Amino acid sequence: MLNSSYMKAEHRSPFLRYSFRSTLIFVALAALGLTVLHSDEGVQFPDGFRRWIHVGTGVIMPSDNPMLKGEEGMHHVFANAKAADAYATGDFPDGSVLVYELRDAQQKSGVISEGERRRVDVMIKDSNLYKSTGGWRFERFFGDQKTDNAIKDSGSSCFQCHSKADKHGFVFSQLR
Amino acid sequence: MLNSSYMKAEHRSPFLRYSFRSTLIFVALAALGLTVLHSDEGVQFPDGFRRWIHVGTGVIMPSDNPMLKGEEGMHHVFANAKAADAYATGDFPDGSVLVYELRDAQQKSGVISEGERRRVDVMIKDSNLYKSTGGWRFERFFGDQKTDNAIKDSGSSCFQCHSKADKHGFVFSQLR
Repeated sequence: MLNSSYMKAEHRSPFLRYSFRSTLIFVALAALGLTVLHSDEGVQFPDGFRRWIHVGTGVIMPSDNPMLKGEEGMHHVFANAKAADAYATGDFPDGSVLVYELRDAQQKSGVISEGERRRVDVMIKDSNLYKSTGGWRFERFFGDQKTDNAIKDSGSSCFQCHSKADKHGFVFSQLR
Repeated sequence: MLNSSYMKAEHRSPFLRYSFRSTLIFVALAALGLTVLHSDEGVQFPDGFRRWIHVGTGVIMPSDNPMLKGEEGMHHVFANAKAADAYATGDFPDGSVLVYELRDAQQKSGVISEGERRRVDVMIKDSNLYKSTGGWRFERFFGDQKTDNAIKDSGSSCFQCHSKADKHGFVFSQLR
């Protein structure tokens, strides 16, 4: 469900937004007396991505193909403004954020419609922080939760595939 | 294909944008020595709608159902910011613009992907100008062209169906 808070978020730079989030996380942990040891900026759920630019949609139908099993449903790709501007060249600047949102898909009387959110995959560009994965940070959030990043290997498993898109900044999707 | 001109358009109010377009059309026609007799503001293609808020997507599969034949393919609904904010209440203010974009859909190995644009349907809210159709102007553009509005009955045929959505401002789609 969108509300006006997303609208406001849209007009802030991704850098500002994430810096602000990191500051909040740091302050909260400091208040608890914990020591923060992060090699990066902590979990970064892309709040408000449903108001970003819609890049495209695909549907993966139910089948016995084990390679596609986890991707069955309807998926959308969204890009923040920085990333959207870079699609034409594939030269994604730092601050680019891309989201792959996977939803259930129901088929009824020949009409496929989207249902509940199943997963949100995120790519965040910071060429200094994530050098081993093409400058991209990879995150994965199941269901509607926004705090538990399921990617535990710093994105090296994601990058095994994404490295094949090296001619388009390691991004598979195209914006038409 | 998106480019930076769409980005700039996004930050202008729909009112400003359409006024500017109308002015350009008027000046162009005046230069040709033509008399402009419009009961409204002329054809209004929603330039840049691909950077608006994506409301949702549906796929209509090939079938023998004559009611759905014209809608076969993948469709997206996009809303400008004013319209997006109004989805929750259904009270769409003047200046709201909605777009239904229909594209070809190809199915290959269980994956449905979107292809070329087939049609763009537009709803533009102006409660003073379009009183007989719930305050909405209806337009239809086939293919990629932006100047020939295929709706020739002031939207009365469109409104026959849309009037059924009277509890949501005559808008069928929902924004989740």
